[in-house]
Amino acid sequence: MTYDIAILGASGYTGAELVRLIATHPQMRIAALSADRKAGLAVAEVFPHLRHLNLPKLVKIDEIDFTGLDLVFCALPHATSQSVISRLPADVKVVDLSADFRLRDPDAYAKWYGKPHAAPELQQEAVYGLTEFYRDRIRGARLVAGTGCNAATGQFVLRPLISAGVIDLDEIVIDLKAGASGAGRSLKEHLLFSELFENVRGYSLGGTHRHLGEFDQEFSDLAGRPVEVQFTPHLIPATRGILVTAYVRGDAETIHRTLAEAYAAEVFVEVLPFGAVPAMKDVRGSNFVHLGVVGDRKPGRATVIAVLDNLTKGSSGQAVQNANLMLGCDETAGLMGAPLYP
Amino acid sequence: MTYDIAILGASGYTGAELVRLIATHPQMRIAALSADRKAGLAVAEVFPHLRHLNLPKLVKIDEIDFTGLDLVFCALPHATSQSVISRLPADVKVVDLSADFRLRDPDAYAKWYGKPHAAPELQQEAVYGLTEFYRDRIRGARLVAGTGCNAATGQFVLRPLISAGVIDLDEIVIDLKAGASGAGRSLKEHLLFSELFENVRGYSLGGTHRHLGEFDQEFSDLAGRPVEVQFTPHLIPATRGILVTAYVRGDAETIHRTLAEAYAAEVFVEVLPFGAVPAMKDVRGSNFVHLGVVGDRKPGRATVIAVLDNLTKGSSGQAVQNANLMLGCDETAGLMGAPLYP
Amino acid sequence: MTYDIAILGASGYTGAELVRLIATHPQMRIAALSADRKAGLAVAEVFPHLRHLNLPKLVKIDEIDFTGLDLVFCALPHATSQSVISRLPADVKVVDLSADFRLRDPDAYAKWYGKPHAAPELQQEAVYGLTEFYRDRIRGARLVAGTGCNAATGQFVLRPLISAGVIDLDEIVIDLKAGASGAGRSLKEHLLFSELFENVRGYSLGGTHRHLGEFDQEFSDLAGRPVEVQFTPHLIPATRGILVTAYVRGDAETIHRTLAEAYAAEVFVEVLPFGAVPAMKDVRGSNFVHLGVVGDRKPGRATVIAVLDNLTKGSSGQAVQNANLMLGCDETAGLMGAPLYP
Amino acid sequence: MTYDIAILGASGYTGAELVRLIATHPQMRIAALSADRKAGLAVAEVFPHLRHLNLPKLVKIDEIDFTGLDLVFCALPHATSQSVISRLPADVKVVDLSADFRLRDPDAYAKWYGKPHAAPELQQEAVYGLTEFYRDRIRGARLVAGTGCNAATGQFVLRPLISAGVIDLDEIVIDLKAGASGAGRSLKEHLLFSELFENVRGYSLGGTHRHLGEFDQEFSDLAGRPVEVQFTPHLIPATRGILVTAYVRGDAETIHRTLAEAYAAEVFVEVLPFGAVPAMKDVRGSNFVHLGVVGDRKPGRATVIAVLDNLTKGSSGQAVQNANLMLGCDETAGLMGAPLYP
Repeated sequence: MTYDIAILGASGYTGAELVRLIATHPQMRIAALSADRKAGLAVAEVFPHLRHLNLPKLVKIDEIDFTGLDLVFCALPHATSQSVISRLPADVKVVDLSADFRLRDPDAYAKWYGKPHAAPELQQEAVYGLTEFYRDRIRGARLVAGTGCNAATGQFVLRPLISAGVIDLDEIVIDLKAGASGAGRSLKEHLLFSELFENVRGYSLGGTHRHLGEFDQEFSDLAGRPVEVQFTPHLIPATRGILVTAYVRGDAETIHRTLAEAYAAEVFVEVLPFGAVPAMKDVRGSNFVHLGVVGDRKPGRATVIAVLDNLTKGSSGQAVQNANLMLGCDETAGLMGAPLYP
Repeated sequence: MTYDIAILGASGYTGAELVRLIATHPQMRIAALSADRKAGLAVAEVFPHLRHLNLPKLVKIDEIDFTGLDLVFCALPHATSQSVISRLPADVKVVDLSADFRLRDPDAYAKWYGKPHAAPELQQEAVYGLTEFYRDRIRGARLVAGTGCNAATGQFVLRPLISAGVIDLDEIVIDLKAGASGAGRSLKEHLLFSELFENVRGYSLGGTHRHLGEFDQEFSDLAGRPVEVQFTPHLIPATRGILVTAYVRGDAETIHRTLAEAYAAEVFVEVLPFGAVPAMKDVRGSNFVHLGVVGDRKPGRATVIAVLDNLTKGSSGQAVQNANLMLGCDETAGLMGAPLYP
Repeated sequence: MTYDIAILGASGYTGAELVRLIATHPQMRIAALSADRKAGLAVAEVFPHLRHLNLPKLVKIDEIDFTGLDLVFCALPHATSQSVISRLPADVKVVDLSADFRLRDPDAYAKWYGKPHAAPELQQEAVYGLTEFYRDRIRGARLVAGTGCNAATGQFVLRPLISAGVIDLDEIVIDLKAGASGAGRSLKEHLLFSELFENVRGYSLGGTHRHLGEFDQEFSDLAGRPVEVQFTPHLIPATRGILVTAYVRGDAETIHRTLAEAYAAEVFVEVLPFGAVPAMKDVRGSNFVHLGVVGDRKPGRATVIAVLDNLTKGSSGQAVQNANLMLGCDETAGLMGAPLYP
Repeated sequence: MTYDIAILGASGYTGAELVRLIATHPQMRIAALSADRKAGLAVAEVFPHLRHLNLPKLVKIDEIDFTGLDLVFCALPHATSQSVISRLPADVKVVDLSADFRLRDPDAYAKWYGKPHAAPELQQEAVYGLTEFYRDRIRGARLVAGTGCNAATGQFVLRPLISAGVIDLDEIVIDLKAGASGAGRSLKEHLLFSELFENVRGYSLGGTHRHLGEFDQEFSDLAGRPVEVQFTPHLIPATRGILVTAYVRGDAETIHRTLAEAYAAEVFVEVLPFGAVPAMKDVRGSNFVHLGVVGDRKPGRATVIAVLDNLTKGSSGQAVQNANLMLGCDETAGLMGAPLYP
């Protein structure tokens, strides 16, 4: 069976990544593509690398006939999604890639995003899209909220450790290194080639990054008590990829065993042998996550390193994985491409 | 039907790229992998990005039982291939990725590679592997010689133009820009990150690059007279990708039309609208070739730009495309992945 | 003696490069810095790398008192310079880094820049700023027009060859590779890190790049007849640097000797031994130009490779060199810093 | 007065950086350059970017006449330095850039470097070369041991804080990001362009990096009790530069004020306003260090970010700064070049 899908916001990087993944998906067909400012253009004019595909033209959202569509990927900017999605037909499944439905608590949303949510009833309904941990609820959901790419990476490290109670909940530091594509195709000075090349810069330091809203929500839920991590993201001179270095307290071998057991049955999560750590490029362009654990000379401390591709597993790949579950396809359909290396 | 294949030389970049492509190929199964110096290791120890695949261990070539294998990809260093292939069972099909069987003339081989060929009878038998132009002969071949990645890029520009007689055969300049992966994983000073980063360097200038042997052979054959091009390759600070800027004499619109017609039925070759040119990254990680033609203010001159990924269409993708033909699979099987962008 | 200078347009890359060079200049003192949109800010807020310097605040141009200033560097956008400079006091020397005064012929200006020149009398007065070739006139000039960075690179290759009559004037191809900083700090999609990284793209192809106006003017003047070159610039994934590959007709050794003799007494121009070619990074961050000549297997053809740093020798270093001459300082003052490698 | 100096190990990156800095030093003259494997070559053959300088040929160490030399920079590989330096004339001052004399305790040396020290008496005599903290002893020293570049960066953050007693000594995490040039010009697979590009990898995790020997020695000395930090270095896709993200416990504003006061009189160390952090490229190619402090949402925690150029302030610039003191030159001579940006 083939499912007709639409991608709203197809002229951004996550939109293009959705097209890339769906292009070889055995059961999805791209029926409509929207891009407000580029409406009227062919996809190849915006993304020449997709020239070989036979795709519909880019249109404005209100030109799309949603009747008969099975699922909509919503890759619109934050804050735009909530109003667009609330106007979609109630029987269309939606995978949202924005930040709009990640936080369940209206107050938390208002705190981290600076204004009240425009569709609080949808906010309640939305299922958090970290597939490996919300699989059953995603299967039956109408609206799935894609996670933040940074937030996803940190959770792959910490969720099993918090659940198993093997680390100190008050002593968690997440030092994160991320490529530029996570910031999208927007024209900002610090994203210029000349600025970022041969450069590294920390940003949103000291507990101000919005993905902390997700960490707080998810970790506190898991722990049954408030958990606040320290989190410092850094922009590095790479396009794709996130590497998290997490500093935790607990027995390193127990931590490793906990992760290895938690992910033993997961297709997309690989836990390396104890003492080995992954490099960022090991998963580039793929839906895989690699995790490694090392002990420290200071007893009772461990370092966990996790890597994923922010545009794939951190965003569009995760979205396809969730859509697969929602549509009843094989969860891995379209997602088994190996990383591009070198 | 599933075909059992082996990859000899699996610890290099073209070997890893073969594994990547074959991992999602619907009809090929990797039965054996060799890597002389890394024999005994798991693939994941050499290429962690392939960790998720269930692959055989790396072994020495003489540990492989070739009985029952349908096809062998030979990704060994130049000069090694000829002796290894001459010892393979006569009924095993072979796609060679080295330079050993690209030149049909023993004298030309000796001239460009500095010593006599060790398997001249195989040299005669080998079919040149530029699929789009040798498709029929490749289908029936036992041994196909993968082209040079630079040589492939230049030929996609020039073959149709030479065949159609629409350019001056004595006035062809090929200025080529290539990423570092074409040089393989070998430890050479100029390939160090600190050396190549923020750098561009010409190499093998003035008519000394070995891929000129292929250009001379193919272009002279097509033209029915000797054709010698000028050719300057440059190493640029990128990993994958080749961009050729070809300066030719002829009517630009005729040149464009000739290319558009020549490739109209080709799945992997896209000719852009007249006046538009491709960027190198438009095909990264894919088996596609993009071509663009512009005129010049000097009448009767045109510039053609071609891009491909040296490891995919320039090497391992081409090899799989040829293997598909040799085994009777769909020519595009395993090769329709869209480029990775950004 | 110390000279007081001002830099107009100090918030762009050429402005920052002027500050960098003048910071250790033994005879220049920065008395004023303008930056229209960033007026009121400290330099360190716009360019943190200049934090250690004791510099005046950024102001609007009309806040500057030009009385007593010895020289003004004008690093404003194209078309802005002509109106600003025409309003400066007549006794202030000016080194302009924009394109506004490079072309002497009003018609040529109108052709290449699409509108009439706003200060045609200044256009006549301006001296073309390629120091090594206009040294005497620059010494006595009030207004010196900095050359295009691409135009400078090509001229270092071709001027001595045209003057000496050792190459065919109708058969010149300039294939140029340039880093992103030449395009300045402007917010354009193709200058984003994610777009340019791992990418190469040709631009302004087929005889449309504005620096052709300079090539035409200078080469035709030298030759005493119209000379039109073919010119293809490419944007490469690097920040600083230009590498020109020039394809010319003539005897390669004669060409080499001609260049070696022409630059024998020049401090900033190095001609490599015959057959050797420079790499782009060999001059990064410096005022040096390196040139190399190789022959070709096709008799009567040669390839010349030239490299310079677009922001230094191609722009701000050249400007300081010219200012040194205009002020009576040693021509090399402030400019002898060795390249930054790696 | 001009001092004659020699550089031993001039064919590596720190050797080339010494040449670059000394080339414009007002009081140093390069009298001899050694490079064992490249002896007999001109410097321009090994480092073409130094072509414009009039330098002595590369020779073997025992070809150098040390009589009359004022100072020797020893940029040899670790373990080689100790035997070479012990054979130098006793009246020649020495600045060593290797790891050989950084640790004062023979047992600590043996622990971190895996074998006994070959010149323990020199080990006692050597002064640790972190100029800002050992200035007085360096002035009178005969042998100064250049610090590790990672070790220097961490100490600029932590020394004043430990001395002032404003942070918890048992809760220090140093997450470090370093460019490839710190690993030198050696041929190792992970330093290849194709491997490091678009990549990040942690290395020497869990308390195994040798620079921990320096941290332990210096911090414990300062604190008067054992101090052990957690330390994770990461290799990032950049050539030059180190960025340290240090996680400490204490009052953020106190920490900021402590650093600002400690470095108020230092020419090369800039402390940014509270809440601002430096980017790695802000100091590239210069001898400057930038520091920034931010608080955290978790009370009593702070993050300090420090950046320097590993080849300049982290190695060769520091060496020249120390040599200036030892020779009685102005401490900043040859070192005031502004960073290269972009």
